[in-house]
Amino acid sequence: MARRSMKEEILGAGVELFLERGFNAAGVKDITDRAGVPKGSFYNHFESKEALAAVALERYGESRRMSLLGDRTIAPVERIRRHFEFLRDELAEFTGGCLYGNFGAEVVDHSEPLRLRVKGGLDVWSTVLAEAIADGQAAGEIRAALDPQQTARFLTSAWEGTILKVRSDKTGDAFDDFFAITFDALLT
Amino acid sequence: MARRSMKEEILGAGVELFLERGFNAAGVKDITDRAGVPKGSFYNHFESKEALAAVALERYGESRRMSLLGDRTIAPVERIRRHFEFLRDELAEFTGGCLYGNFGAEVVDHSEPLRLRVKGGLDVWSTVLAEAIADGQAAGEIRAALDPQQTARFLTSAWEGTILKVRSDKTGDAFDDFFAITFDALLT
Repeated sequence: MARRSMKEEILGAGVELFLERGFNAAGVKDITDRAGVPKGSFYNHFESKEALAAVALERYGESRRMSLLGDRTIAPVERIRRHFEFLRDELAEFTGGCLYGNFGAEVVDHSEPLRLRVKGGLDVWSTVLAEAIADGQAAGEIRAALDPQQTARFLTSAWEGTILKVRSDKTGDAFDDFFAITFDALLT
Repeated sequence: MARRSMKEEILGAGVELFLERGFNAAGVKDITDRAGVPKGSFYNHFESKEALAAVALERYGESRRMSLLGDRTIAPVERIRRHFEFLRDELAEFTGGCLYGNFGAEVVDHSEPLRLRVKGGLDVWSTVLAEAIADGQAAGEIRAALDPQQTARFLTSAWEGTILKVRSDKTGDAFDDFFAITFDALLT
């Protein structure tokens, strides 16, 4: 039981530090310090920082509330809006970003296992978003001419870039741009 | 003359390595090795890696062919398309990304001088793009209902996210998504 809890603490600290500092600037000792465990314990639980990052990406993906996007009790455009509002509100201090975006900028050129995890996470996200867009088209809420998959892939990319801009600006203005263009000019 | 050339070589190597590896993983010794100069010479030219990165961001901005976006001898939508095609073709091997995006993910939370340079570079870019969009509206080529500044800011963010996706996918499919949505669904 104690071992399990230590692994969870390292994992939680890893997600936090990869968000705050990125992959390269978050050292194993930083992670174990944040977790409040001895540095040596790291390698009892993870083979490498890369191995931790792979699990961190999975854990991060599970926290993205994809279920909201698929909740058919809510009208499609409203679900899509609430989904992005949830992601926006997580970044309230305009720092830290998205693990997919951070790793997409820093890690994917250098680690094939992590590249495939980032790609997999983005693929799941855009697939679920595409279904919500298709639901919106069936309901007559979203422009019928849009290709749902293509639009979903574009919007996930636009969101990742929006986060980079929010962090560079240190204001949420780029979120306002995203919501205005997405909901008032592109989808409807 | 020799000093100037060494500084230029360090700067060129810095831009390359910040694109290839990001800020944290590109060490001063990596940069001087790439430039083919002794490590000690670095500090004759730059106070720190951060100081080099600030100049690298400026140099990078000058290479983005903003002049093409403002070239009124070319029809506005065509200019905008060629601009993004130029940026796309620079990333032919689907690695390396954009210096604004790399620093936006990795550096802006931790260096106020570099954050302001990234923000400044993105602001110039979206301002010039907004003028091209306004030209397109005046020419009846682009939907009149769009706010040019907001659309331009959104598109620069969408482009940065598209680059992250291209690198994660290791294919250019996300570029196709960007061009299709931008030119067939959003602008026109």
